[in-house]
Amino acid sequence: MPDRPPPKPPTRAPGRVKEVTSASNPLVKDIRALAQKKHREETGLFLVEGLKLVIDGLDAGWELSTLVIAKAASDNPLLAKTAARAVASGADVIEASAKVLEAITRRDNPQSAAGVFRRRLASLGEIDLSGKAVAVVLDRVRDPGNLGTVLRTADAAGASGVVLVGDTVDPFSLETVRATMGSIFAVPIARAKEAEFLTWRSRIKGLVVGTHMRGETDYRAPDYGAQPVLLMMGNEQAGLSDALAETCDVLVRIPQAGRADSLNLAVATGVMLFEARRGVLAL
Amino acid sequence: MPDRPPPKPPTRAPGRVKEVTSASNPLVKDIRALAQKKHREETGLFLVEGLKLVIDGLDAGWELSTLVIAKAASDNPLLAKTAARAVASGADVIEASAKVLEAITRRDNPQSAAGVFRRRLASLGEIDLSGKAVAVVLDRVRDPGNLGTVLRTADAAGASGVVLVGDTVDPFSLETVRATMGSIFAVPIARAKEAEFLTWRSRIKGLVVGTHMRGETDYRAPDYGAQPVLLMMGNEQAGLSDALAETCDVLVRIPQAGRADSLNLAVATGVMLFEARRGVLAL
Repeated sequence: MPDRPPPKPPTRAPGRVKEVTSASNPLVKDIRALAQKKHREETGLFLVEGLKLVIDGLDAGWELSTLVIAKAASDNPLLAKTAARAVASGADVIEASAKVLEAITRRDNPQSAAGVFRRRLASLGEIDLSGKAVAVVLDRVRDPGNLGTVLRTADAAGASGVVLVGDTVDPFSLETVRATMGSIFAVPIARAKEAEFLTWRSRIKGLVVGTHMRGETDYRAPDYGAQPVLLMMGNEQAGLSDALAETCDVLVRIPQAGRADSLNLAVATGVMLFEARRGVLAL
Repeated sequence: MPDRPPPKPPTRAPGRVKEVTSASNPLVKDIRALAQKKHREETGLFLVEGLKLVIDGLDAGWELSTLVIAKAASDNPLLAKTAARAVASGADVIEASAKVLEAITRRDNPQSAAGVFRRRLASLGEIDLSGKAVAVVLDRVRDPGNLGTVLRTADAAGASGVVLVGDTVDPFSLETVRATMGSIFAVPIARAKEAEFLTWRSRIKGLVVGTHMRGETDYRAPDYGAQPVLLMMGNEQAGLSDALAETCDVLVRIPQAGRADSLNLAVATGVMLFEARRGVLAL
């Protein structure tokens, strides 16, 4: 008897298409409510703007809950194709008036599409720390734009994931998602309380490098290529907490010409990541 | 006969102190108008938020036109000292109600001080390109936050200046000044039309390195330490214009793991600057 085919992944029934012209429609209100962290936490959903990012999300296999498209642009072939793809995947499609799209994205001249996706968070155990992997740890990051740019940079540098420790901004806020430029779908993100993180860290094998304004080692000195690396970056104002700094194998500093510790968090993460991945990245 | 003392720099008469409690006061309206580029261009003035930045500006010798302080905080010793220093330098001081400070900074819970400074732009000839100097050229930068972060990064890496080419955002907008975290007072900024820039570039001696998504040279390959370096970074969407790309001695690219050319402009500038200054910066 031949082997049985593998079980199919669970599929959803095709979605429905609705036309919405009023910003006070309950569907629109639900989507607008995703601007608040509370509603994102309750529903597990988040909003993405622009056709390109919606396609990025679908290509990456994320679950699209609702696709909103501009009624006026619905004869755009790529938009029409994406709407068909969305319906087939089980997402509902809203054909919206310009006013409704403006209300949803809170922008004048909004893009022709927006998508409501189901968020995904990785567990700490899912962050790859094998071989020459480099993962980033952010301690209590406060600025949504910084977080988005760090995620974008981690993607570009080929980091294996980003771990958010402690009280951080939400990676699925509109501002963060915007700043990722699509990398929200590409980089595994885990969240952990400091104690959880420290327990996980005690079990991992690899080099744990903290960037610290009192670090006494040049950031170029560690041997990043020899083992997996965990790169720890501190809060924008306070830097790494004492507990996180103490758990590092080495505390490094990026030498600066003028005032100490004056780099923006995302820029510092970029400089550190391209140093840690120096032996791996090549044209 | 002994040498005469050198002539004193021109000094201004001491400023005056006024109390303002109404947001419709003409002084407040003038300061609020500085949110618009047109008014900054007409007056040559710009707004800086926060006591720390006001002190940075005074320390750097920039001309303070008006200092606004929170009346409620005027017994803060550092604030009082700064107000005295401002008056002595010829600036007017406005003791403002919380409402007036909120109106000026367009924020709830504004900081206890804001300063109106006279802007300074360098000429192209004032950008140092001697020895091992590295200067940054930005082609048509569009995002105020990006520009501010680039200025902050240029300061941290010890760049000798930043040249803004073509149609760019205003370096003295509130959002840019905020993102510089005080580096607005530390880094010489020049502006030039593309043709002007190309004429200047034809006369300078040094290595002109452009970052380009079609660059075929690894960004780490050029010999940055041997001569002054002009580091050219392109517009966020379009990259370097053809004319600017053609004027480069070499076009480099930062190798990336995922999608091509996906770094944020400020992060890419940071990675490039710390590479170009690699031989100079040390702990």
